[in-house]
Amino acid sequence: MGELTGAVRRLRLGMVGGGRPSGIGEIHRLAARLDGRYELVAGCFSRDPVRGREAARRLMVSPERCYPDWRAMAEGEAVRADRVDVVAVVSGNDTHVPATVEFLARSCDVMCEKPLAVDHAAALSVRAAARRAGRIVALGHYFAGFAMLRQARAMIAEGALGEVRMVQAEHASEGLALGTPDGRAPVGVIADLGVHAAFLVRFVAGASIDRVAVDAARFTPGRPAEDDARVLLRLGGGARGAIWVSHAAGGHRRWIRLRVAGSRGALEWSVGEPDLLRHTPLGEPTRLLQRGGRGLIADAGIVSRLPSGHVEGTIEALATVYGDLADAVATRARVARPLYPDVEDGVAGAAFIESSMRSIERDGAWVDLPRA
Amino acid sequence: MGELTGAVRRLRLGMVGGGRPSGIGEIHRLAARLDGRYELVAGCFSRDPVRGREAARRLMVSPERCYPDWRAMAEGEAVRADRVDVVAVVSGNDTHVPATVEFLARSCDVMCEKPLAVDHAAALSVRAAARRAGRIVALGHYFAGFAMLRQARAMIAEGALGEVRMVQAEHASEGLALGTPDGRAPVGVIADLGVHAAFLVRFVAGASIDRVAVDAARFTPGRPAEDDARVLLRLGGGARGAIWVSHAAGGHRRWIRLRVAGSRGALEWSVGEPDLLRHTPLGEPTRLLQRGGRGLIADAGIVSRLPSGHVEGTIEALATVYGDLADAVATRARVARPLYPDVEDGVAGAAFIESSMRSIERDGAWVDLPRA
Amino acid sequence: MGELTGAVRRLRLGMVGGGRPSGIGEIHRLAARLDGRYELVAGCFSRDPVRGREAARRLMVSPERCYPDWRAMAEGEAVRADRVDVVAVVSGNDTHVPATVEFLARSCDVMCEKPLAVDHAAALSVRAAARRAGRIVALGHYFAGFAMLRQARAMIAEGALGEVRMVQAEHASEGLALGTPDGRAPVGVIADLGVHAAFLVRFVAGASIDRVAVDAARFTPGRPAEDDARVLLRLGGGARGAIWVSHAAGGHRRWIRLRVAGSRGALEWSVGEPDLLRHTPLGEPTRLLQRGGRGLIADAGIVSRLPSGHVEGTIEALATVYGDLADAVATRARVARPLYPDVEDGVAGAAFIESSMRSIERDGAWVDLPRA
Amino acid sequence: MGELTGAVRRLRLGMVGGGRPSGIGEIHRLAARLDGRYELVAGCFSRDPVRGREAARRLMVSPERCYPDWRAMAEGEAVRADRVDVVAVVSGNDTHVPATVEFLARSCDVMCEKPLAVDHAAALSVRAAARRAGRIVALGHYFAGFAMLRQARAMIAEGALGEVRMVQAEHASEGLALGTPDGRAPVGVIADLGVHAAFLVRFVAGASIDRVAVDAARFTPGRPAEDDARVLLRLGGGARGAIWVSHAAGGHRRWIRLRVAGSRGALEWSVGEPDLLRHTPLGEPTRLLQRGGRGLIADAGIVSRLPSGHVEGTIEALATVYGDLADAVATRARVARPLYPDVEDGVAGAAFIESSMRSIERDGAWVDLPRA
Repeated sequence: MGELTGAVRRLRLGMVGGGRPSGIGEIHRLAARLDGRYELVAGCFSRDPVRGREAARRLMVSPERCYPDWRAMAEGEAVRADRVDVVAVVSGNDTHVPATVEFLARSCDVMCEKPLAVDHAAALSVRAAARRAGRIVALGHYFAGFAMLRQARAMIAEGALGEVRMVQAEHASEGLALGTPDGRAPVGVIADLGVHAAFLVRFVAGASIDRVAVDAARFTPGRPAEDDARVLLRLGGGARGAIWVSHAAGGHRRWIRLRVAGSRGALEWSVGEPDLLRHTPLGEPTRLLQRGGRGLIADAGIVSRLPSGHVEGTIEALATVYGDLADAVATRARVARPLYPDVEDGVAGAAFIESSMRSIERDGAWVDLPRA
Repeated sequence: MGELTGAVRRLRLGMVGGGRPSGIGEIHRLAARLDGRYELVAGCFSRDPVRGREAARRLMVSPERCYPDWRAMAEGEAVRADRVDVVAVVSGNDTHVPATVEFLARSCDVMCEKPLAVDHAAALSVRAAARRAGRIVALGHYFAGFAMLRQARAMIAEGALGEVRMVQAEHASEGLALGTPDGRAPVGVIADLGVHAAFLVRFVAGASIDRVAVDAARFTPGRPAEDDARVLLRLGGGARGAIWVSHAAGGHRRWIRLRVAGSRGALEWSVGEPDLLRHTPLGEPTRLLQRGGRGLIADAGIVSRLPSGHVEGTIEALATVYGDLADAVATRARVARPLYPDVEDGVAGAAFIESSMRSIERDGAWVDLPRA
Repeated sequence: MGELTGAVRRLRLGMVGGGRPSGIGEIHRLAARLDGRYELVAGCFSRDPVRGREAARRLMVSPERCYPDWRAMAEGEAVRADRVDVVAVVSGNDTHVPATVEFLARSCDVMCEKPLAVDHAAALSVRAAARRAGRIVALGHYFAGFAMLRQARAMIAEGALGEVRMVQAEHASEGLALGTPDGRAPVGVIADLGVHAAFLVRFVAGASIDRVAVDAARFTPGRPAEDDARVLLRLGGGARGAIWVSHAAGGHRRWIRLRVAGSRGALEWSVGEPDLLRHTPLGEPTRLLQRGGRGLIADAGIVSRLPSGHVEGTIEALATVYGDLADAVATRARVARPLYPDVEDGVAGAAFIESSMRSIERDGAWVDLPRA
Repeated sequence: MGELTGAVRRLRLGMVGGGRPSGIGEIHRLAARLDGRYELVAGCFSRDPVRGREAARRLMVSPERCYPDWRAMAEGEAVRADRVDVVAVVSGNDTHVPATVEFLARSCDVMCEKPLAVDHAAALSVRAAARRAGRIVALGHYFAGFAMLRQARAMIAEGALGEVRMVQAEHASEGLALGTPDGRAPVGVIADLGVHAAFLVRFVAGASIDRVAVDAARFTPGRPAEDDARVLLRLGGGARGAIWVSHAAGGHRRWIRLRVAGSRGALEWSVGEPDLLRHTPLGEPTRLLQRGGRGLIADAGIVSRLPSGHVEGTIEALATVYGDLADAVATRARVARPLYPDVEDGVAGAAFIESSMRSIERDGAWVDLPRA
């Protein structure tokens, strides 16, 4: 790249984890590259040094910025003039909290895969670290970038559904039934899939989850954690809801689906048709709202790269989150409820996981979520 | 109609209720007429005698067989040589038990609208009456007649889904949100819609509902009974499930939808596309099974009137139930688990309603269903 | 049925053809029975007398009104006081014209299966006979009874699409590819399926077909007539269109589909989801209009038996046509463009078939349709 | 980017055109960036020098490699050691041939937007230039990159549909009806949309288009070229087909849709659900094949970035074409029928356009396509 004058430059991105065979790292790289606002310059891609170096070579990261682990990376980058601006933490769940805290302390902004944490106290510690450092924690809930979920969020905020009454979310997979669990299999289905669904409830309906009652099961023989759960929800404002998440549902393809119904209508969205939002006003015909089409809310924060008639999928959605993060890094503006998933979502997610696990222990009794 | 020799004759049908403005009576009449196996000859169509006579005239029922109430009808028909064979009880829920018992005692077979009863003891009394009389009680769960639900039932019985793990049923309506409650509105949503869903679970998955935990709400101002409920299910054989029923879900059109997932695949059906059954074998592409198409189970009991490429809907489904009833009346064969909804389904439905109401009283605690 | 006073009585229906294995006769019987306005009292169900008598017995038609052929039936019924009011002609295509003309001459109204005729002159002769007799000829284009096609027709008439620009119709089947041709196989695909599509264009878009250019093929080895055709259309008012019909399209299930686009929007309908009409106003989100739902045109002539959330299919559609015919018989009102398919549609259909065959002979040259 | 050892480096990309307000240039940039195999280093983004420099700044192209026009760019780059490897020609249609020929002569490989040319002779001249230079011409038919179209192509090549009998393609837009024509509006609908459809026929069905008969119309007042056309196709091997393309179809959203039917089944695909391929084997239930799912052909050349359950859209498809081009540049392998659209597709497209325009002049007469 030639010499540039003026303000435009790419953010320098570092990555923790994301070597093969992890798919999640690759999705982050695709998303970070798409809009040309990041350049991957450093990383510790694997605990296996051979694998790590091979990943660095393939990713065109120079050998001296390929580190054996995130602690070494934090130290090594700290002394460079061209050190990383943003670090993507896409390694195992147990590293999310310590690596994020470490890079925050080094004045980096962090994009952390979900779940930020599985217990509330740990999530609060990350929030405190972010506040101390004056840095941003964004999360890998790519749903926040989908155009039509932003439209849904804006419609509900505007009152298009009237009083929100019910939220139904589901995210069912046959992964364990297939006998080909992905890398995240040891994690229970609440922390793996449930936290996405809970994020969606909060993001789209704008409602807090106040109480949960969970019926969980282990269908897969030998499975150490629950692989199927139904979560009843009591939401702030009086709405009710239910989440169904499963790793053991034969014939199910992990298509998250969200429905919100209120006194004046309903919205429905699924990741399988991401550019479509079904809106059924009370008593009226269903309308198929399309990204790129007319009838969308102007200040919903929708990012559209292609005209209507083309589909933008998950990569584009996560790229939008990366773009929001880049904007936030550039401006350092404080926003009460930003469009990208931030540390407050991480805190809410941890509260959801912790309370759900407690309800499971008590055979489905109602459990109040801790207040942030 | 001319004189007929041989065995073919239409069954003489009487009807309790079903005058205007009830829509349910008209559906029963359409269904009973469709295949030409019944002739409506008697009825007490309304508590209002003017309305009742007007209905009789319109329906070509002779004035002397138009009765003021079901007691008079039972007495009046009992003394006729050409008395009714089958009585359809489509009047208010409170009449279902006494009218059914009365006509059974008069040696009539009965087609009773659902719910047969809302408490278990009453349903057991109907079962006892049917056994004493040696007569049949069929129920108006028209779902039992849909070709593709019969296919689903047969597939699951054959093991096409492996071990059944999850059942998800939903039946959500915006009726009360619209402010135009139909005639059944005073009934709570469990007895009105939930009982249909519970029937489907039993009919298709072949599994008993052993325990329920119910989170119910009243969203409609001034509403005397719950209008929204989420029911967690524990099923015989270890499967889990959930039912969502609502009369208050703005934007929802009462399209019942059923999904069953097991260790080897999933099935999905909705009343909005009744001739279609989605079958997703574990790890394989979804198959769209069609009524009238190939690949269906030969002895599933499917009744097809039209070739594939045409749709058969709810009228045809209920007509199939009426046809099954006519066959059962003709043969008096005892069948352990008939294809039409019978008194055992009524008993199971009453147990579901009673236990669900108890769980609601206890803020969603698990309640065991009574054993039949 | 007891003695009735007042005006209500069922029309006496006779049937020409429709014994086994014909499926078309059974659909007519189901449709005629559904609303209880007809009673089948006479028929010549088969050229094979044993089959004919067996059909009569099964259908509860008295033996003395079971005739060997339509000529005998016309004579035999003519001398009865309770003679047939309406005759359904569902026998082979070659009988449509002579049987219809005969029963018209006997002062019967006629429901004739399509095509009324395959040449224009013959269709005109039926029209002349109907005018002489002052009787009605209705046709078995059941599409005319679908609620949402009536809605489409009324919307277009009201200008909801602006200037109609394009009509796309298709009706493709794999019947011959399967090697199981149905009874109508010897008929070319234009007369069998194309005439349905041409009726739809006329019925829904309200436009005459002025010119056709046809590219036809014979894909099935040994097939005596074309089994696949693409028809380009020039319509009255300047619109263009295309029809695709096939008996040789492997993987196709005979789901007729119609799309109309204009300067202000589009409509789309398919027989596979008959209660749904997709309406896309220019530049706006698609709306899913539903039978039984709001937003329909009040005087579109829609007949609804079930509330929204249930499906009415082909039997109900044809029953609606039978109901219209019963109304027309009762009132003898002259209507310029009735909602049921009438002899004018038969004349237009014959013109379409004749002109299409001529275009095929000329390797796809444009051919003008004869003016009625 | 740090110093790299070994063979991995990004290809240097130049771009002709693609400044604002062109959307097409942005899609090419997104696609070229996605997989990290190209770096945009030079360009002439606009005929307006202010706009061009602004685009360069925004795109982080250094000022000295921002050229006023493609001739200057060809000269300027030729003398650089780090000169461009590949040039994307996304400027107006009239520049496609001369700019492509020029960069080929400078030993660049070229990615040219479609149509390569609108007359056959011009396309042949590009082919000759490519052969002389030993360089590659790829085309912007992004459809070639969709996973499920590659699956369709491989299935048909393997004989999954038996003998291919019919191809139906459509690509209808309401752009001109909306009164907001995009930049390509002056081009007739055949050259703009028809050429995409014709490419798909060739790419997926593997059949040459031998003859066309075209019925075209101008619905938009004042429109200088046809804005709606129906094209009848005669294909190599005896198949028939039809293409419908329109810029004047109110309510249509430019969702290209392709169907192929043969003696043994059918395939259907639409850009609105790009990861889905409907496969209906003769007489059997439809199967929904999914990118990332099982049952796909191993050597179909499918590129999958995300697991099943996420959608990859048009950007990813074009990125796959860019990836193929990068592979081809790296290996210089000669492939008879490569997976990316190449100069042969450009020649076939030009023949299609030229012959279609001739048929339009002759009121829809059959016209034979020139042989390449």
